[in-house]
Amino acid sequence: RIDATRLWNTLMETAAIGGTSDGGIRRLTLTEEDRQVRDWFKNRCEKLGCTVTIDEVGNMFALRAGTDASALPIAIGSHLDTQPTGGKFDGILGVLAGLEIFQTLTDAGYTTRRPLLLVNWTNEEGARFSPAMLGSGVHAGVFDRAYADGRLASDGARFGNALDGISYRGTVKAGATKFAAMFELHIEQGPVLEQADTDIGIVTGVQGMRWYDVTIKGREAHAGTTPMQMRQDAMTAAARLILGVETIAGEFLGLATVGDLNVTNASRNVVAGHLHMTIDLRHHDDSALDHMEAATQHLIEATGAAVSAITCERIWHSPAVNFDPGCVAAVSKSAADAGFSAMEIISGAGHDSVYISRIAPTAMIFVPCKDGLSHNPLESSTVDQCGAGAQTLLGAVLAYAEH
Amino acid sequence: RIDATRLWNTLMETAAIGGTSDGGIRRLTLTEEDRQVRDWFKNRCEKLGCTVTIDEVGNMFALRAGTDASALPIAIGSHLDTQPTGGKFDGILGVLAGLEIFQTLTDAGYTTRRPLLLVNWTNEEGARFSPAMLGSGVHAGVFDRAYADGRLASDGARFGNALDGISYRGTVKAGATKFAAMFELHIEQGPVLEQADTDIGIVTGVQGMRWYDVTIKGREAHAGTTPMQMRQDAMTAAARLILGVETIAGEFLGLATVGDLNVTNASRNVVAGHLHMTIDLRHHDDSALDHMEAATQHLIEATGAAVSAITCERIWHSPAVNFDPGCVAAVSKSAADAGFSAMEIISGAGHDSVYISRIAPTAMIFVPCKDGLSHNPLESSTVDQCGAGAQTLLGAVLAYAEH
Ligand SMILES: NC(=O)NCCC(=O)O
Ligand SMILES: NC(=O)NCCC(=O)O
Repeated sequence: RIDATRLWNTLMETAAIGGTSDGGIRRLTLTEEDRQVRDWFKNRCEKLGCTVTIDEVGNMFALRAGTDASALPIAIGSHLDTQPTGGKFDGILGVLAGLEIFQTLTDAGYTTRRPLLLVNWTNEEGARFSPAMLGSGVHAGVFDRAYADGRLASDGARFGNALDGISYRGTVKAGATKFAAMFELHIEQGPVLEQADTDIGIVTGVQGMRWYDVTIKGREAHAGTTPMQMRQDAMTAAARLILGVETIAGEFLGLATVGDLNVTNASRNVVAGHLHMTIDLRHHDDSALDHMEAATQHLIEATGAAVSAITCERIWHSPAVNFDPGCVAAVSKSAADAGFSAMEIISGAGHDSVYISRIAPTAMIFVPCKDGLSHNPLESSTVDQCGAGAQTLLGAVLAYAEH
Repeated sequence: RIDATRLWNTLMETAAIGGTSDGGIRRLTLTEEDRQVRDWFKNRCEKLGCTVTIDEVGNMFALRAGTDASALPIAIGSHLDTQPTGGKFDGILGVLAGLEIFQTLTDAGYTTRRPLLLVNWTNEEGARFSPAMLGSGVHAGVFDRAYADGRLASDGARFGNALDGISYRGTVKAGATKFAAMFELHIEQGPVLEQADTDIGIVTGVQGMRWYDVTIKGREAHAGTTPMQMRQDAMTAAARLILGVETIAGEFLGLATVGDLNVTNASRNVVAGHLHMTIDLRHHDDSALDHMEAATQHLIEATGAAVSAITCERIWHSPAVNFDPGCVAAVSKSAADAGFSAMEIISGAGHDSVYISRIAPTAMIFVPCKDGLSHNPLESSTVDQCGAGAQTLLGAVLAYAEH
């Protein structure tokens, strides 16, 4: 059995790296804080006797040898980067639970038949560099290294330069590190498990998601002299889009979010002439997502009449995913064996498992988090909830590793 | 008579200082570009035999001696700073027309009875440092030096440090430089004169204006897992305010502008938890402006229910102004004497004359600008329009200077 308190202590220990005064973590991908947590992770894995390799987009693989050296390993993977307003659990729990499992096996003097592989995927969050799940996406062949290297952060950095800058460009070719299956433990990041008072979410799939970059061109004009009806105001056009996609989400029972908006050359006494904003649309049903996208396009055309131009580019999409039935069954059995209450659930968030599921049997385990809150410093799960997740993960992994 | 072509050439010469590739000027207050244009201005005035003094907030005064040394001078004043997306005329025309008048008098070997005083007021635009008309406001005793020094730019600079940084902190006490009256020539920045096909606007006053800083506190949350109805989204609340104040402007036939909006820790897959935005409300009738403000407060209270908190602070207001009837009459007579078509007009924009009118008889002259466009690189007036304004300015100033 894993040691929930030890896992908790490790969580709290790493929370200091990029820790913020409000109890959260700000550990943006490929920043100095990310370098520190990577160094820490590498060191811990090596102390546990693992061999750590790094691929050309910075994905980190810690291999724990098995008795059958010719067998493909079973992977445990998630991420150690966070949002600007990140919490202490999103992604981190999945990696540190892997460490806890390795420690538990070492303490018990146990070697699995297949090797085990603990993975820290690069840039899962998509906050500093879009899109999300970039490292696992390159591993799965969805993107290539050149695409990743060229991603531009709003702080002006390029992914490739930032990776070189923290010295985490490895020599292993992306995708070359093979494994037979992957399991990912994660906090739910939503309210479902907490409201159902259930210990474990057996994640059967992930909803579809699409990201858009919108540019609105209006006309800069004087705030004190330009009659309201003579304006081409990029800001009021943006406001119509923000409320419009909110309405579209309501109609289709999906989700729509405008998280970022930047006015170029903003000045309080100038009618906004140019701005960028983002749109994030999600739905568990890809065809409903098609309808949401079409409705958004209509909205943009209608709103565009009041300004000089609106462009909307879909920069990323990830179709709805169904996880491997065998892996899902292993999670379900592991939770039941350990005596936890469990229910099936669809993930609202994207995860590295989304891309990994294209190349290997994959499944996920969710644990509840307080008030369904995530991407927020107040994000939290209890010692017992994290422990239950790690225990369930251990059971599922062992079943596959001995298999 | 002034030389319109020479004035135009001076306008184009200074337009290179901070000039942008799209034909505009970006010459924000107390930046390196502002320093350059100040150096240029000082040099030109001294070449014309003027004595240049600088006060403790950087206002620049170029004195051209009169025959009666004991008489108070007549001032010609405007500003050389611009908006981030500024044009080549806003403020600049008023200062350079003063230079053209000095050159014309010198060429004619003419000395007025009263001295003439050409003024470049610091930070008229209010773009880098709020509020607008700060230098003339300190001169008029509306603000004090300490208030000005403490103003914070969005780039993190303090007014006082920036002033020291470009070495334009003078030793003259603010307000110590006295004058008997001031005239300001400016482009209209709106569409009225152009639509009425009239050469000269006899400005009788300036509308009331109020500036607000709004902060919205919502709750950061995951864009993919947080149900729409569980969100406290600062962005959708902002959108409601943006469209709400637009409606209020329509109801009261005033103006409302949200020119700037910044999300703290923005990320495209995080529901916005914290943002700042500005509101600019204007009306020529102060009591109507009171109603607009009250309606905005109601709007904010109603919108606030959907988030955690909205605060709205009025950081500046400038009541509606009526200019001195004697000065206005001098402008009217000067335009008529020179054979220009003219009409009375109320200014939609704030100007240094607003604050100066509290301490000295003041009036303004407007000339048309293309499409009423200002605070835009495309801002433009013709050689003849600028010349007509400068000629009208000369007549009004001479009438007062000989008086
Ligand atoms: N788990 C998680 O927060 N991933 C970020 C990608 C997304 O926006 O869903
Ligand atoms: N003239 C001018 O553009 N002044 C700036 C202050 C204002 O916003 O009216």
